[in-house]
Amino acid sequence: MQKRYLLAPGPTPIPPEVLGAMALPILHHRAPEFAKLFGSVREELKWLFQTKNDVLVLVSTGTGAMEASVTNILSPGDKALVVNGGKFGERWMKICQAYGVKVEELKVEWGYAVDPARIDAALKNDPSIKAVYIQASETSTGVAHNTRAIAEIVRKHDDTILVVDAITGLGVFDLRTDEWGLDIVIAGSQKALMLPPGLAFMSLSEKAWRLAEKAKNQRFYFNLKKERENQQKNQTAYTAAVSLIVGLKEVLRILKEEGLEKVFSRHRLLADATRKSMLGMGLSLFPKESPSDALTAVNAPEGFDGQAIYKTLREKYGITAAGGQDHLKGKIFRIAHLGYTDTFDVIIAASAVEMVLKGMGYPVKLGSGVGMAQEILMKS
Amino acid sequence: MQKRYLLAPGPTPIPPEVLGAMALPILHHRAPEFAKLFGSVREELKWLFQTKNDVLVLVSTGTGAMEASVTNILSPGDKALVVNGGKFGERWMKICQAYGVKVEELKVEWGYAVDPARIDAALKNDPSIKAVYIQASETSTGVAHNTRAIAEIVRKHDDTILVVDAITGLGVFDLRTDEWGLDIVIAGSQKALMLPPGLAFMSLSEKAWRLAEKAKNQRFYFNLKKERENQQKNQTAYTAAVSLIVGLKEVLRILKEEGLEKVFSRHRLLADATRKSMLGMGLSLFPKESPSDALTAVNAPEGFDGQAIYKTLREKYGITAAGGQDHLKGKIFRIAHLGYTDTFDVIIAASAVEMVLKGMGYPVKLGSGVGMAQEILMKS
Repeated sequence: MQKRYLLAPGPTPIPPEVLGAMALPILHHRAPEFAKLFGSVREELKWLFQTKNDVLVLVSTGTGAMEASVTNILSPGDKALVVNGGKFGERWMKICQAYGVKVEELKVEWGYAVDPARIDAALKNDPSIKAVYIQASETSTGVAHNTRAIAEIVRKHDDTILVVDAITGLGVFDLRTDEWGLDIVIAGSQKALMLPPGLAFMSLSEKAWRLAEKAKNQRFYFNLKKERENQQKNQTAYTAAVSLIVGLKEVLRILKEEGLEKVFSRHRLLADATRKSMLGMGLSLFPKESPSDALTAVNAPEGFDGQAIYKTLREKYGITAAGGQDHLKGKIFRIAHLGYTDTFDVIIAASAVEMVLKGMGYPVKLGSGVGMAQEILMKS
Repeated sequence: MQKRYLLAPGPTPIPPEVLGAMALPILHHRAPEFAKLFGSVREELKWLFQTKNDVLVLVSTGTGAMEASVTNILSPGDKALVVNGGKFGERWMKICQAYGVKVEELKVEWGYAVDPARIDAALKNDPSIKAVYIQASETSTGVAHNTRAIAEIVRKHDDTILVVDAITGLGVFDLRTDEWGLDIVIAGSQKALMLPPGLAFMSLSEKAWRLAEKAKNQRFYFNLKKERENQQKNQTAYTAAVSLIVGLKEVLRILKEEGLEKVFSRHRLLADATRKSMLGMGLSLFPKESPSDALTAVNAPEGFDGQAIYKTLREKYGITAAGGQDHLKGKIFRIAHLGYTDTFDVIIAASAVEMVLKGMGYPVKLGSGVGMAQEILMKS
């Protein structure tokens, strides 16, 4: 018998109240009670997204909403500026290329955040760029880009929008959609929204809708205009994922009860404690700057295999964290601390990493990293 | 938002598979499928109790089975020898007294195990004693009595049975019902059986059934003979607690998959790690000898209130442990590690106690107790 712990950057653990709500008998998506429920969820999503605009709910993973924010916004031959600082920056590239969008790539070395001045320069250099695609939090490297600073630059350009993949950012740290001018913000259910995978969310500004009017890319399922028409009537274009919406209602209740400021400060504290614990046991962090509060990417010590650390965490200690992707495979491991996580998830992660490393022969004093985390966590 | 952790000596956490099974639509207790289910559960209970005799299932807490083992075994005026080394020893006294049984009390100072020689002397001194009542594990003090040695003494007396309250012992450490000659063994659902409260279990030897034939105490609900007649036909005398039985089926599957030896060694390891962690942070244990593997009773440091430690664990860290009872209130706190608990429950307990004590001004190096626990836990 071994308990299982989920400390991966999605899916994340689901609160028991949410599991309970989703286990209730299913509603029909055209029943009046569903429309009522969906209407209230739609209002609360605006609160979470810090926007007055509609937040559309799609039955897909976050990638579906990423695709929708290309196909519904641009036409073949249009120009996009893509910040590519990791696996998910690369995904923006691939989606744009799949739909004939011309990509101006801002390549960022993995582990660094994009310098907003580069975006400023690129937009000044080429005013025909219609959209800038970024990650608020790049999950493959554990780096957060400076969304606020980037938004300040993009909003100066009347014909360019900013599209923010906030899949591991929304509900983790502050993203002021309307105040900062984030034209499209994308989230997924299985991250800080503490739900199973299956829902994507996106808010669109008026500026984004204006671009959408002219977009000629091919699309059918991800038709945002059609979704907006339906969702404004508390309906969905196709079948709603009713159980997930029922769970979402409960998630939003929990988040509202905690309050946005506390949700963010909790994540900040857990992230800080996780980082300090890793440093406390003599490890170094992969991000060279601007670490995300959603997850911590840690360098495997010289001569130790990051994949072996990740595998031992899972097989010996029942903890599902994450390894490194692509050229980082074997070089790093990643521990998430977003969503339904608290003090003792950090303690579990720190103590398990210590035991795994010690078991592999790395010279670590047991309790040293945990002690550093405790120092921080006691402040909560 | 705060996660809740249950580290009390019952109810204990319930495995997710068991919660899932119990959430299924309810069966009727006279339906053929229930009889089939109950039949297989009855067989597996014999395996868990290490007996060839029937294990009766009662809809009550453990105390109900304790009462049944007095009322079904003794008549008013009969003599019982009661080992009283804590709250639950006292309960044996009270039940006997409520039914007019004459009690010979073997008072044991709280924190100590009974010396089996005292039982030997008492039985030799008074051969009219019909039953000896003990706790395998006295939850109020965290002490395990030496059930095996006591059984060796009692079995020499043909007309005296041994009744073992194993409510926090069964499924925690080895109790060989038939091999050692434990005449009545009592368990409860909400302890190492990882179920919600509501079921009690008891096995009876042939020697116990012989006494039961003559017992004249008043009883109606707890009529063991009537229960045996029904349960041997895979029925229950009154309504069966069907959902709990469905959960029990799943619990027994989990325990069988782990295997009894591993169940016991896991509890031994968790107990050892918990004790070492408390010593590692400079605390002392309440038991002066024979600590139980079910829970660890810890002395509050001089000048610190044990109730405040217990309350801060709950209110600040979301951990429900236990305080002290009666004259131990304020003097000790108790951390359980039985049932659905593993490595990281011990880590959580150790790190939380460190943070609570440090927050109260006790000089503890954060991570010191955790490190001691990790040393032990890595061996698993």
